[in-house]
Amino acid sequence: MISETILNLNRNGSAIRAMFEEGAKMAKEFGKENVYDYSLGNPSVEPPKEVKEAMTAVLAEESPNSVHGYMNNAGYEDVRQAIAEHLNKEHGTAFSARNILMTVGAAGGLNVILKVLLNPGDEVMTFAPFFGEYRNYVTNFAGKLVTVPTDPDTFLPVAENLAAAITPKTKALIINNPNNPTVVVYSEEVIRKVAEVLEAKQKELGTSIYLIADEPYRELVYDGVTVPYLTKYYRNTIVGYSYSKSLSLPGERIGYLVMPDEIDDADEIIPGAAVANRVLGFVNAPSLIQRAIKRVLDSKVDVEIYNRNRELLLSKLTEYGYTCVKPQGAFYLFVKAPGGDDKAFVQAAKKYHLLLVAGSGFGGPGYLRIAYCVDYDMIVRSLPAFKSLAEDYGL
Amino acid sequence: MISETILNLNRNGSAIRAMFEEGAKMAKEFGKENVYDYSLGNPSVEPPKEVKEAMTAVLAEESPNSVHGYMNNAGYEDVRQAIAEHLNKEHGTAFSARNILMTVGAAGGLNVILKVLLNPGDEVMTFAPFFGEYRNYVTNFAGKLVTVPTDPDTFLPVAENLAAAITPKTKALIINNPNNPTVVVYSEEVIRKVAEVLEAKQKELGTSIYLIADEPYRELVYDGVTVPYLTKYYRNTIVGYSYSKSLSLPGERIGYLVMPDEIDDADEIIPGAAVANRVLGFVNAPSLIQRAIKRVLDSKVDVEIYNRNRELLLSKLTEYGYTCVKPQGAFYLFVKAPGGDDKAFVQAAKKYHLLLVAGSGFGGPGYLRIAYCVDYDMIVRSLPAFKSLAEDYGL
Repeated sequence: MISETILNLNRNGSAIRAMFEEGAKMAKEFGKENVYDYSLGNPSVEPPKEVKEAMTAVLAEESPNSVHGYMNNAGYEDVRQAIAEHLNKEHGTAFSARNILMTVGAAGGLNVILKVLLNPGDEVMTFAPFFGEYRNYVTNFAGKLVTVPTDPDTFLPVAENLAAAITPKTKALIINNPNNPTVVVYSEEVIRKVAEVLEAKQKELGTSIYLIADEPYRELVYDGVTVPYLTKYYRNTIVGYSYSKSLSLPGERIGYLVMPDEIDDADEIIPGAAVANRVLGFVNAPSLIQRAIKRVLDSKVDVEIYNRNRELLLSKLTEYGYTCVKPQGAFYLFVKAPGGDDKAFVQAAKKYHLLLVAGSGFGGPGYLRIAYCVDYDMIVRSLPAFKSLAEDYGL
Repeated sequence: MISETILNLNRNGSAIRAMFEEGAKMAKEFGKENVYDYSLGNPSVEPPKEVKEAMTAVLAEESPNSVHGYMNNAGYEDVRQAIAEHLNKEHGTAFSARNILMTVGAAGGLNVILKVLLNPGDEVMTFAPFFGEYRNYVTNFAGKLVTVPTDPDTFLPVAENLAAAITPKTKALIINNPNNPTVVVYSEEVIRKVAEVLEAKQKELGTSIYLIADEPYRELVYDGVTVPYLTKYYRNTIVGYSYSKSLSLPGERIGYLVMPDEIDDADEIIPGAAVANRVLGFVNAPSLIQRAIKRVLDSKVDVEIYNRNRELLLSKLTEYGYTCVKPQGAFYLFVKAPGGDDKAFVQAAKKYHLLLVAGSGFGGPGYLRIAYCVDYDMIVRSLPAFKSLAEDYGL
């Protein structure tokens, strides 16, 4: 008998990935033009041209054995120092290379820090709805994911719910800001309230509760919204970042962890994270892209392209009668499922070659996630399908 | 309290990595020219020039969103198909894309397949001396590493020892061929004997015992030795490969798993490995290097450069009175520690700025591992240090 965890995951795999693969099949059957795949957060905006230039320049200018060789498990020291200085400039922090660990994307970073923090049975909280992979990451280390309900109207944290979820076993709270799938951004005020609850509980219980800020969407915000940098509001904060969305490089698997000196047990956690990177089999973040990142720290994708998609979809879906959460960040819409049954609606949508993801997979039943990191033209072509579905449901 | 596993690893970390980092410090103090670092298997031979050409061409010719975007968690289908066909040509096998999963190096691949196979308490065997990271990889999934003693003179498997180590809990045997650190290559005859024991025990116990062939050194062999392709000798074989050594790309983290259709539970293991790649946080092997690999399947580093190092060191160390295992593959020498105490010898060697790794870290006390994937000139400069040490020990 192979791993029971894997057997279960084979049965009840990622709804997102299943839909993505169904989309590929439907595209073969009906033609790519006639399938409207809103399933996967796979960036459609091209990486900034500086990325290609930087990768080409690294290949041309730097020594091959150093570009492609082993380095410290934490990553190249000069790259980590450059990222630290970039963060300091942006956020007024005081990091150095020691505080940065280069990771295999944000997913790699989360696994590394959970490996470092968790003993079997430890609890990790997250606000629901939430990115479903958190459950797998926490389970990898025999931890228990505790989902904390948010305000059903705004999807913002509720202090009382958070306080009620904390036990002596609570090791961490994962915050995804901007949030996937609810697309809300937690403001300074929200973060201060969360920090207050955590501080009080740490004192009451005599424990350390780490706030893990998962921030792959930090740069994708709209309408002038800003995302607070959480290390400034709560001492025990660890940040996980990824270039997957900000530079449209999800396949390259490059990101980093920020572990400030002020966190409890920093002197074990910082070297421990390099060890975890090694023993989990990452060994180090891919090398060429590390060296290229150092050259493009000020670049990001053109967010206006996503914004244009967002505005079209939001206005049209609202016009057709759908109820959408106001999207402040990331590249998703979180929409109330007409009829209330998100899974049934997702099935009904397939008739119109429309691929959506049910909110149930994110602990948000009754909602749909629509990833609009797609071609504008596909959105235009898909509008009649959304309209017909709305009519079918009597909106 | 953070993870006890990590706290332990922080205390008793990788001897190899510790030595590598000590080497970097000594180089700062005494000058790079005066430190002889034989600690880490970090290739010194440059990647074949086709690698740079291929990466540059992929960047210039292919669509950025496809080069840097998400693909199936198993990797690009065309890359996997090309690798399958390359293996079929080399080994007369009959693989297709379905049998190949692109991984974050061999370390990533081993973690993926162990995640798929193991339930808590399952046992994984390996022949000692062995690559120390296997213990961490197996422990990641609450498995138990069982080390099987080899013949103390030849370091070859002993059938009786293998049979005695197998229990109803045995899920796999990891074979590293060519072996790190013992540098022996298991011949066809040796493999047939191992397969025979496994077959008999599978039948006796009614279990499936997977043979995991960890083959990062497959291409690095000398004196006309060949490495058998294990899927041809034992049905339940899974192969882990890495381009780290064959193309000198250890930092890029690129390799693959081969999961033949004939293995027990293939229909769960093959999709399960893609799921494991995702949930462990790898998500997929880095994308650009996947695309480049497809263009350089026939390339490999110039092994003659390592051979020249091997011959110089072997002849000189033998001349000075050291006893070396005959090295058939990889880029290490496995040498009897004069005086018998490998840890003491490693300490004594530091006086001469000579950085070696104690065999104890590999389950091979009484031996030293010397990684000769270094500049030839460094070997020449280091010879007086080896000579003085031999004299100190009365060789």
